[in-house]
Amino acid sequence: MNSAWWLQTAHAPDANVHRQALERQQQLTKPAGSLGALEQAAVQLAALQGRLKPSVEQVWITVFAADHGIVAEGVSPYPQEVTAQMVHNFVNGGAAISVLARRLAARLEVVDLGTATPLNDLPGVQHVRIAAGTRNFIEAPAMSFEQGLQALQAGRDSVLRAKAGGSELFIGGEMGIGNTTSATALACASLACAVADLAGPGTGLDAAGVAHKVQVIERALQLHADLPDEPLQRLFCFGGFEVAALVGAYLACAQESIAVLVDGFICSVAALVAVQLNPSIRPWLLFAHNGAEPGHRHVLAALDGQPLLQLGLRLGEGSGAALAVPLLRLACDLHGQMATFAEAAVADRPA
Amino acid sequence: MNSAWWLQTAHAPDANVHRQALERQQQLTKPAGSLGALEQAAVQLAALQGRLKPSVEQVWITVFAADHGIVAEGVSPYPQEVTAQMVHNFVNGGAAISVLARRLAARLEVVDLGTATPLNDLPGVQHVRIAAGTRNFIEAPAMSFEQGLQALQAGRDSVLRAKAGGSELFIGGEMGIGNTTSATALACASLACAVADLAGPGTGLDAAGVAHKVQVIERALQLHADLPDEPLQRLFCFGGFEVAALVGAYLACAQESIAVLVDGFICSVAALVAVQLNPSIRPWLLFAHNGAEPGHRHVLAALDGQPLLQLGLRLGEGSGAALAVPLLRLACDLHGQMATFAEAAVADRPA
Repeated sequence: MNSAWWLQTAHAPDANVHRQALERQQQLTKPAGSLGALEQAAVQLAALQGRLKPSVEQVWITVFAADHGIVAEGVSPYPQEVTAQMVHNFVNGGAAISVLARRLAARLEVVDLGTATPLNDLPGVQHVRIAAGTRNFIEAPAMSFEQGLQALQAGRDSVLRAKAGGSELFIGGEMGIGNTTSATALACASLACAVADLAGPGTGLDAAGVAHKVQVIERALQLHADLPDEPLQRLFCFGGFEVAALVGAYLACAQESIAVLVDGFICSVAALVAVQLNPSIRPWLLFAHNGAEPGHRHVLAALDGQPLLQLGLRLGEGSGAALAVPLLRLACDLHGQMATFAEAAVADRPA
Repeated sequence: MNSAWWLQTAHAPDANVHRQALERQQQLTKPAGSLGALEQAAVQLAALQGRLKPSVEQVWITVFAADHGIVAEGVSPYPQEVTAQMVHNFVNGGAAISVLARRLAARLEVVDLGTATPLNDLPGVQHVRIAAGTRNFIEAPAMSFEQGLQALQAGRDSVLRAKAGGSELFIGGEMGIGNTTSATALACASLACAVADLAGPGTGLDAAGVAHKVQVIERALQLHADLPDEPLQRLFCFGGFEVAALVGAYLACAQESIAVLVDGFICSVAALVAVQLNPSIRPWLLFAHNGAEPGHRHVLAALDGQPLLQLGLRLGEGSGAALAVPLLRLACDLHGQMATFAEAAVADRPA
């Protein structure tokens, strides 16, 4: 009965609440439009949540972790065991996303979809071990159709847990050494873009490393040139398990009416695949930041995403989205708590 | 004994702590540099506060309010009584900065330096009523030297209260109908810039309104063309009482070793004057955002300021700086609480 759940249409934002929220913004004691992007964010959240005064107090963060066969091609400066080591760091509280979740009082969940170093039932981790990483997509599709569906479903399952926990905002994060290479190949296939326009240093390749990464991706795209023009096929061919889980999570959030705050380059590529697969989900996505990876702005442009932050971030883990949460909370506070001109007896400008 | 207090040299940032903080950033479990501007902010705060793990939990916000004689020239779409009405709104909790201060648990102080509508000892407001607004600077200098010194001292007095209150970060805000015109004139005089390059819509002038504002400022600059080339002279000729108080506050913060988070266009012009007057204060300034007013980026460029946010804000009141506080707090948390590679037993990239 789960067949093609990902194609089910998401609810449209509430047009009535959208209009009321826009009207309210015009009445608050400030020059109209003077809170810039925060006004739009509050109005969007109001329409999504179907209430004039939205809230993002209850934040759920799931970090999806998995390894990548493409790492065999030497596309990352970090050794592959770092993926599993960082999962330990997430649950031990020492990673960036752990620190951020703590300060934000957000629920942090970690899902292991398959690391090269097994994690052996590490407490605090959801284990959905599909395989010990994907296959090397320069040799074969990264995952089978069955594995892909399993990853999509793992993402959806996180969202169902978030929903049961009363979450008002969902953040997906990712950890997987080599996953900018996977995401770049997927973005190039999805947008029919030149690899050199999208590929970047990831966690810190030098110029020679980036040039090598470009060649690897170009060879992979050539190998899979006869791939059917279909988002799931591209996802399963080039994606990682964590990327597919993010796609499943974004789809399920929209279907379950939970607003999404999309993190960096890899998450934005997952969002792109999700929107290509099911365009009805697009209104449910907010974009946290424009990161340092050069491909990010292309992917954001394709999604017409207006990110809140531009801080030169390139960490992943959902950290950029977590950093934008206070702005959304403050946007909701301003929208909900500021006095109107009438309430405060402040003169508005003459009409 | 207060003679020329504003020229006293501020302490330099602690070079030793700066180096240690940079080293710590390199050891945290993330790709080096991957937290972008937040790494620089944490390191700067560490050096300013002289401790490896800085903190900006204790935030002090002072909003300085005053009226402007230049409003007689029709440079604002809002009536002048809004300045005093907004002071009521600040203390009643309905203004943007009131909402933000509440969420941030920041101390919010309001200083009345002279509004056209008297505020009659409104509780919750510091009254330093210099005059019922400045003079119209198209006819005469906006304030006398004595009035200017009084305003500078009012800003300094706020900082001394902030210091007594244990503040770790100072935010100055401003409220004064007409004050983008004052700040634009002051910036043009300070930078020898063309008025048309700096003038903008302020709270919401249309194109004709901006053109008129440009003419008004050009006439004023012509009238005062023989002004001595000296920052205080320019400040007192074109500034508002609230702008001069901000200058005094920024100078005093640096001298009292309190980091400053500079808000929008008007505050950045005050920061420019303060730095021109006493360059030793520059390291103590952090810049919150690049606002919608077109002159802002010119002033930031002159100060070599790298703002954290770009949200199209143009509200004032210190609101843009307040919005950036969570980023600084998270930057400090990440810097202070993330595990090192050694602590977390995570493999770093090979050297």
